[in-house]
Amino acid sequence: MSANAVSPSSGPSPLLIVGSIAFDDLDMPTGEYRGVLGGAATYAALAASAITASGVRIVGVVGDDFPEAHIGALRARGVDTAGVERAAGRTFRWHGRYSSDLASRTTLDTQLNVFADFSPKVRAEHRSSPFVLLGNIHPKLQVGVLEQVQRPTLVAADTMNFWIGGEPAALAEMLRRIDLLIINDEEARELSGVHNLVRAAAEIRRRGPKMLIIKRGEFGALLFDAAGTFFVPAYPLEEVFDPTGAGDSFAGGLLGYLAARGDASPATLRKAMFFAAALGSFCVEGIGPERLLKIGRSDVASRIASFGRLVDHGGELALPS
Amino acid sequence: MSANAVSPSSGPSPLLIVGSIAFDDLDMPTGEYRGVLGGAATYAALAASAITASGVRIVGVVGDDFPEAHIGALRARGVDTAGVERAAGRTFRWHGRYSSDLASRTTLDTQLNVFADFSPKVRAEHRSSPFVLLGNIHPKLQVGVLEQVQRPTLVAADTMNFWIGGEPAALAEMLRRIDLLIINDEEARELSGVHNLVRAAAEIRRRGPKMLIIKRGEFGALLFDAAGTFFVPAYPLEEVFDPTGAGDSFAGGLLGYLAARGDASPATLRKAMFFAAALGSFCVEGIGPERLLKIGRSDVASRIASFGRLVDHGGELALPS
Repeated sequence: MSANAVSPSSGPSPLLIVGSIAFDDLDMPTGEYRGVLGGAATYAALAASAITASGVRIVGVVGDDFPEAHIGALRARGVDTAGVERAAGRTFRWHGRYSSDLASRTTLDTQLNVFADFSPKVRAEHRSSPFVLLGNIHPKLQVGVLEQVQRPTLVAADTMNFWIGGEPAALAEMLRRIDLLIINDEEARELSGVHNLVRAAAEIRRRGPKMLIIKRGEFGALLFDAAGTFFVPAYPLEEVFDPTGAGDSFAGGLLGYLAARGDASPATLRKAMFFAAALGSFCVEGIGPERLLKIGRSDVASRIASFGRLVDHGGELALPS
Repeated sequence: MSANAVSPSSGPSPLLIVGSIAFDDLDMPTGEYRGVLGGAATYAALAASAITASGVRIVGVVGDDFPEAHIGALRARGVDTAGVERAAGRTFRWHGRYSSDLASRTTLDTQLNVFADFSPKVRAEHRSSPFVLLGNIHPKLQVGVLEQVQRPTLVAADTMNFWIGGEPAALAEMLRRIDLLIINDEEARELSGVHNLVRAAAEIRRRGPKMLIIKRGEFGALLFDAAGTFFVPAYPLEEVFDPTGAGDSFAGGLLGYLAARGDASPATLRKAMFFAAALGSFCVEGIGPERLLKIGRSDVASRIASFGRLVDHGGELALPS
């Protein structure tokens, strides 16, 4: 765990993102999409790079079937892809089917392929990245990344039920070494063994991370930290096309904002929650990352302004006398 | 529909609440509770009276089995009970069972009793009430109340799936005559025939009410009005005991704040959403209305302050340069 997680702003700072890069086969109510660019690190890097110009570095592995054009697309968005390793074999592939209201999904097939042997290697020039986002990989690999980096300002991590149930010791070690855990409500319940999210959050924070974000999809997200509890709603959209990657885009948007500000204080984290939710909302507006690949600064600024109006209660709340 | 729904504040103003007064039999995970004071008008009046001292008038009917002590409890909270009619027969009685996580409930029995012949009569001295809340009763009866009152500043109404499916014409007439509809997400979807809530809201507002609130229980509530869209989260609680009446407490808290301010402008409505959610949160902290019967002004002020911290993002949200 870093000692200086709430240090004052040090200005725009690079962000290191470690996680999966994948092909997704998506069975959506609107059609079937095959070989869509996917993976947690991909979504997070695209989201972060929409906010910060201070350097977004991605670490992941792809197979020899992964088109150079996808790498180029990430690079065109300002993502440093030097840490993307190319291995012999096929790229990680996930096949999912969504329900007609997009509220639930079923995994039809998972082919780990080259991702099965992924052992993230942080390049020398990336080891001093002040902000680190550990995507959902084996907690031992997440800890392995932390062994390679130099006292980051903030380390954030995601995890999933598979590791919560199957690798409790490795997960416990990871939790002790990170500053911010970003998980969804079901994962928070499974990890803590507590249904109520307020109490689940207290239990999880006792195990390590001083900061915890619980994502609730279309129902927004809660932040628990030393300053208290903070809530950001999901942005209400007229059309949702594909929730794939929304949670990773949320994490990427959050870390992108923190990196741009070079600060992870409670005040900055609260503003970052809106950038996180804004990037999550862009993500679901297209199939795969297509919308994230197109948005510009004016789109982000405009959505953030709308978001401000969504929650602006016009100053002090006081009981009428 | 009133002509002056967004008139400037006219100071603290009385609030008229029409709806059910009941006995509830509650099968909760924590135990079985019988003959608990209930009903939409009861919860709404108790919530409103926790905020406003400008006069909360309740119109409803009870049977000859209804204890005078319950009337006294309402009166002790500042509720004007002169409009509570006592009819020969038994009081409306509802029996429900909640799931272990309180997320869903099943109606085991409904005995309308004296409520079956309820025809709300507004007393002469209550007809000029500037704020009117029409609880969930037959839309014809809701319109009948509007025939008796004199150009209120704001008329708000609730309804339910039973009337949406069974009385579309009467409901359409009611919608044309109110300013603000307060319903839950499933009701909004059924009423509009549209699943997406942003589009459902637009459709419902085309049918009459210029303002619409869609309640989502523990996931907060959305306001749609001429000024745009506004969101208030539910207050995160460590313990929830009984969701019965939470939606009615939300509506009562909302109208109580508007009445206290004597104003239904978009700015006031946005602040009112927090008082609504705060009273909903108190409601669920006890079995039936027990918590609402105990809270004082300092409890409300304290929760509103916590609520402010929950959403306070510290000023302007701007994309880092």
